[in-house]
Amino acid sequence: MHCPSCGTQIQTFKNPTPTVDIIIETVGGIVLIERKNPPHGWALPGGFVDYGEAFEDAARREAAEETGLAVTLILQFHTYSNPERDARQHTASTVFIATADSPPVAADDAKNAGVFHQDNLPPLVFDHDRILRDYFAFKKTGKRPLL
Amino acid sequence: MHCPSCGTQIQTFKNPTPTVDIIIETVGGIVLIERKNPPHGWALPGGFVDYGEAFEDAARREAAEETGLAVTLILQFHTYSNPERDARQHTASTVFIATADSPPVAADDAKNAGVFHQDNLPPLVFDHDRILRDYFAFKKTGKRPLL
Repeated sequence: MHCPSCGTQIQTFKNPTPTVDIIIETVGGIVLIERKNPPHGWALPGGFVDYGEAFEDAARREAAEETGLAVTLILQFHTYSNPERDARQHTASTVFIATADSPPVAADDAKNAGVFHQDNLPPLVFDHDRILRDYFAFKKTGKRPLL
Repeated sequence: MHCPSCGTQIQTFKNPTPTVDIIIETVGGIVLIERKNPPHGWALPGGFVDYGEAFEDAARREAAEETGLAVTLILQFHTYSNPERDARQHTASTVFIATADSPPVAADDAKNAGVFHQDNLPPLVFDHDRILRDYFAFKKTGKRPLL
């Protein structure tokens, strides 16, 4: 990167950026949000992990911010790190499964929120279709992705 | 951060840094390396993920760099993100289980490498004692940490 003031080139080490996504199980299915910011479309609730924040805390925070739900985390499911999964930058998402006992209310980066089941999923952004394929396979077989 | 040339404060978004660690199963036990750099001591082979690199590729690369072994990844085991796990900075490690069919040879950041089993583990740096407790419990019960 370059200093915005004097233009000096500054060495920084660039790493993938960790994110969390949360599969929230509630009455009637799982919670999805419609994104306010690009890429537009439906997605799992989630977002960037803050420095100094455990991923579990980030998952609870992002779920609350985007859906209004105080979720109970059940399981760390899997981490998805394919560099192509987000066209904006290389992110790696650790996905959690959680439960909530009330309906979602869209807030923060979400302009809409809804509850969906396997047979009425909307088109999803990022690699969230793959994540949900893995999730529904897990619900059926008890097996998580190996890699 | 500040520009090293003119001192201007530059806004950067700081995130935890993703790393990988690899539990390599080979004849006689699992592979550990003795670190060349601080913190000194024994550890699982591992290191920072490069930008644009899938975590699986980082795991194979770090295993090869530090132990000389061309490993076969078996399973993504768990991601450890406690901000206190590394005193130097907030890292989050995604741990893989892998196999190799020859003995390790220390290289790169490793000054020594060896094969250990559950009953003769050396003292370990970072949270690698916790990771290996979880691993040996998994080998006995088939159960991974929930969170």
